[in-house]
Amino acid sequence: MLVVKKFGGTSVGNAERIFNVARRCAKEYQAGNDVVMVLSAMGKQTDVLIDMAHEINPNPPKRELDMLLTTGEQTSVALMAMAFATMGIPSISLNAFQVAMHTTSVYGNARLKRIDTERIQHELEGRKIVIVTGFQGVNKYEDFTTLGRGGSDTTAVALAAALHADKCEIYTDVDGVYTADPRIVKKARKMEEITYNEMLDLATLGAGVLHNRSVELAKKYNVPLVVRSSLNESEGTTIKEVVKVEGMLVSGVAADKNATRISVVGLEDRPGVAFKLFNMIAKAHINVDMILQSIGRDGSKDISFTVPEDMADECYKLLEDNLEVLKAKKVDMRKNVAKVSVVGAGMMSTPGVAAKMFECLYNADININMISTSEIRVTVLIDEKDTERAMNAAHEAFGLED
Amino acid sequence: MLVVKKFGGTSVGNAERIFNVARRCAKEYQAGNDVVMVLSAMGKQTDVLIDMAHEINPNPPKRELDMLLTTGEQTSVALMAMAFATMGIPSISLNAFQVAMHTTSVYGNARLKRIDTERIQHELEGRKIVIVTGFQGVNKYEDFTTLGRGGSDTTAVALAAALHADKCEIYTDVDGVYTADPRIVKKARKMEEITYNEMLDLATLGAGVLHNRSVELAKKYNVPLVVRSSLNESEGTTIKEVVKVEGMLVSGVAADKNATRISVVGLEDRPGVAFKLFNMIAKAHINVDMILQSIGRDGSKDISFTVPEDMADECYKLLEDNLEVLKAKKVDMRKNVAKVSVVGAGMMSTPGVAAKMFECLYNADININMISTSEIRVTVLIDEKDTERAMNAAHEAFGLED
Repeated sequence: MLVVKKFGGTSVGNAERIFNVARRCAKEYQAGNDVVMVLSAMGKQTDVLIDMAHEINPNPPKRELDMLLTTGEQTSVALMAMAFATMGIPSISLNAFQVAMHTTSVYGNARLKRIDTERIQHELEGRKIVIVTGFQGVNKYEDFTTLGRGGSDTTAVALAAALHADKCEIYTDVDGVYTADPRIVKKARKMEEITYNEMLDLATLGAGVLHNRSVELAKKYNVPLVVRSSLNESEGTTIKEVVKVEGMLVSGVAADKNATRISVVGLEDRPGVAFKLFNMIAKAHINVDMILQSIGRDGSKDISFTVPEDMADECYKLLEDNLEVLKAKKVDMRKNVAKVSVVGAGMMSTPGVAAKMFECLYNADININMISTSEIRVTVLIDEKDTERAMNAAHEAFGLED
Repeated sequence: MLVVKKFGGTSVGNAERIFNVARRCAKEYQAGNDVVMVLSAMGKQTDVLIDMAHEINPNPPKRELDMLLTTGEQTSVALMAMAFATMGIPSISLNAFQVAMHTTSVYGNARLKRIDTERIQHELEGRKIVIVTGFQGVNKYEDFTTLGRGGSDTTAVALAAALHADKCEIYTDVDGVYTADPRIVKKARKMEEITYNEMLDLATLGAGVLHNRSVELAKKYNVPLVVRSSLNESEGTTIKEVVKVEGMLVSGVAADKNATRISVVGLEDRPGVAFKLFNMIAKAHINVDMILQSIGRDGSKDISFTVPEDMADECYKLLEDNLEVLKAKKVDMRKNVAKVSVVGAGMMSTPGVAAKMFECLYNADININMISTSEIRVTVLIDEKDTERAMNAAHEAFGLED
């Protein structure tokens, strides 16, 4: 069996932790399996490097920043190989040039295009543990690139796909994917399995375990993805295409407090109004999420939507400045709101999930601001102060506890 | 004009120094010249990385140590390119893979085999300052290698040769090459020019400005080498094949206190005795320098030689243990000795240099232990306490002062 294992910066933050990770992977190797490891830069090393860069240039050229940052993962993989040598286990470290990991040209936010597997295959055939730098690639100019947020997860999944690995394990500081955030919902339960689509909705909605890009990639190439703890031996959660039917309508409950509701009130009720509004917002590179359109009492219409909190003020100002262009009466902004969602592949074939969600919130005396649904998700916008209560109510209503 | 400029770790040790170096090179660039820079790792970064490695593995695999150490120069070149960006001057950093610098396979002590110049030429044609990582290369397995001691100087000279540069400037913390160490000989004078061969003898003899390998390489490819200060604008010393005849027999005086004399007394006087002795020493990887053989009073013979101080005890023990095998009477060791040499291409065609050297030492009441000469060098072994007096005496006798 071939397993790709990815460890983040915290897991390789010092010599002791490096040995912990090495021992864990050695067990897999000694059981006769082939092991490919993907490592991030140690601890806060990437931040240290960025600070060094900013001391020289507050806005360093992206190409040179990538040239600098890629030293971080190279340091991790070299030290890991030294740890294996101490333990007498054959291993080899490889950077993006050596693999090679071909990416698009965009420095700081490149996308993987193609991975050469010859070198890795050769080293695996020599029964070595292969330790690969995460987060980095090489573009067509033969320059280092980095993959942006969640980059090392993406490297791991892409390597697993290219090598036809049996699974890709992402080691993190949590045990797996839970039916809800255990810090908020005490009765939250770790899921054994979950589908790619459910995980994508949970990731987007702020479950925060995995970055969307890596889940999308795993789905595309059908790579079984396992999220598990780097601190204990528990089994973790497997993310794959089809999961055992557990008779569950809903797999999990997620919340996202990083939302602000903006309402544009008194727009003319004629074609093209929504296009004009959202085109203006898109041009300002502001991401819009839930959208609700309603007819006002006087024949005009109102449009409400949510934006990330850090873009809210900019968006509000943009619309205020363009009230005349938009022919709107006024703009409202409401900051203390949260999105709470229930996600489940099972709800595709079962009606009444949304109704059940609304019912449980009604029983908990929680007011719903906006509603948005997809095939496998129901999301409501509520007051931020009600978030915890809403999550617990939904978690209980859909029987997610153990 | 194309100039290769090499800066050591101290010169790029922090943001302020990086900008100093950048400003200096920007001047050369703005004068219309093409500039290729070679940088070492910042300050003590290489030592920091070695310490990190030793924490994980007291004897790390050399391949992985090179993988780790090469991050040092990559950090320097990226930060330097950021400094140029701050100043609005186009530049680009390149590591050993990107250049590419092909070396032999020996990790930790590789030799440069071939340098591809295409990428550098391309960047120079785009009027960019090209900043290359010193000390590192890539071997036939596509692994990082490092070049060992004096590695960045070697990188600079090799690049100058491959690019047919007009000169290669090595920036250091001294103004240039002096007729003697100015800390010891107050009247020492900076030389304007010196030949490769003179420099080679001075380097070997402990002048310590340049590593031998880089001088040998410069001689082989006839690269004019300039040693100059990174702290001031003085012209430095040019090292080349033929220098202006200054009517000087001797160019410089050098001393090396890292020597111990070992004498093997009472050897049989028959063929093969010296071979047996030095073969034994060579097999123990002990470097032997000056050798003197003399006939003892009783028809036996004595052989004396010098070894580096840190190998002296080992050598002494080896010979003590093998007195019977060697059929020798005893071994003597004398630690507090020093080699003092005068070097000059002029002495090839002029007899009497050695005699003049002995005369001036006699006048200074300094006893000579051993003598060794080459075409352009006279070396004497004396008591270590006499070193400074001997250097000053020779410096004066050969009229080296200003």
